[in-house]
Amino acid sequence: MAEDQPGARPSHLNFITGNANKLAEVKAILSSIPGLELESRDVPGDEIQGSIEEIARDKCRRAAAVVGGPVLTEDTALEFTSLKGLPGPYIKHFLSALGHDGLNNLLAAYPDKTATTVCTFGYCAGPGQEPILFQGKTQGKIVPARGPRVFGWDACFEYEGETYAEMDKNHKLEILQSLGLADAAGRGSDITYVANAISHRGKALAKLKSWLAGGDVETL
Amino acid sequence: MAEDQPGARPSHLNFITGNANKLAEVKAILSSIPGLELESRDVPGDEIQGSIEEIARDKCRRAAAVVGGPVLTEDTALEFTSLKGLPGPYIKHFLSALGHDGLNNLLAAYPDKTATTVCTFGYCAGPGQEPILFQGKTQGKIVPARGPRVFGWDACFEYEGETYAEMDKNHKLEILQSLGLADAAGRGSDITYVANAISHRGKALAKLKSWLAGGDVETL
Repeated sequence: MAEDQPGARPSHLNFITGNANKLAEVKAILSSIPGLELESRDVPGDEIQGSIEEIARDKCRRAAAVVGGPVLTEDTALEFTSLKGLPGPYIKHFLSALGHDGLNNLLAAYPDKTATTVCTFGYCAGPGQEPILFQGKTQGKIVPARGPRVFGWDACFEYEGETYAEMDKNHKLEILQSLGLADAAGRGSDITYVANAISHRGKALAKLKSWLAGGDVETL
Repeated sequence: MAEDQPGARPSHLNFITGNANKLAEVKAILSSIPGLELESRDVPGDEIQGSIEEIARDKCRRAAAVVGGPVLTEDTALEFTSLKGLPGPYIKHFLSALGHDGLNNLLAAYPDKTATTVCTFGYCAGPGQEPILFQGKTQGKIVPARGPRVFGWDACFEYEGETYAEMDKNHKLEILQSLGLADAAGRGSDITYVANAISHRGKALAKLKSWLAGGDVETL
């Protein structure tokens, strides 16, 4: 399929990130796609306000315009059920201002502490093209922080009894394997960036990977 | 002073609003500036994420680029002290998702219910020019809604014992007069848009008005 046809798969992708670890890990995961080259580009620019999907599409579209070619973007949101999905795409501002305790405090008035993590990868073929979104979601709940407080809100998001920060390497590997992102020999188990928000990011990446390989997956 | 000099005052201004009432009221208030023409323009576009000032500057700059001339923009934020200033510029998303009760609930874990309303008018002389910001702030507190629930969060922001929604016409007129925005005969007392968020918007407008008339005021 030619790259300028709708639905064509790219052979070259600019992953919009300033984070070398993210690039290395997404590269490792997508390395099984034949002929796909992935490099990183750091595109400055402000995210807009809006829904998760509006923000992702805008970011992806702008990046493609700046890069002048195919781009891959990533966004993470954390939706609190009791707050009708908020802070959602604004979670990073709330985490940095309020910390883990503050995130818990936002729900003090509500018995329902459930939350959904949403990871959205966006692909845009080039300037003026409509982005395609690959989304992964995981339901869990907001709890007082447990485990190493290293990655974002990992320590206060509990999934099946463990916070993301507490989840041990073997458990992460199992999930990676179940998503086809690590092999039976355990290769992929060192993928900490994906593993640390494994369910939502892993699901989104699994969709993206399958699509890049020519498969039909649910996109937005 | 020529209009292309830094600090020059405009004789024509495009107020970026889709709201006819807002235009009429700001027009009425600025009508005493000799030779100033004000018209409204509705410029679509997404607000960015960031600080109040970053968002205001970006909006003002973009509007000037679209209009191709001098513009006036307005933004309102509501900062909760206990939430380190949040929801701040994101207040409209929180109000529309959570309502007045939900705004109160965000503070359930905190004894400090104080909040600051922030109104920011932005002036940009034209494409490529640096915006000038005029800011007005008022300290009050978040309370269970009282008074008509007509304008935004007016019913749950209490200032000196009354919510903005409860504040009666005479009280609003006094404040307008103290800011020089209504005259002794009461002309200006029908200015509901300004009056309904009188302190912060009035303060910002008073600064803007004084600056437009050639005065020196505190800008950002």
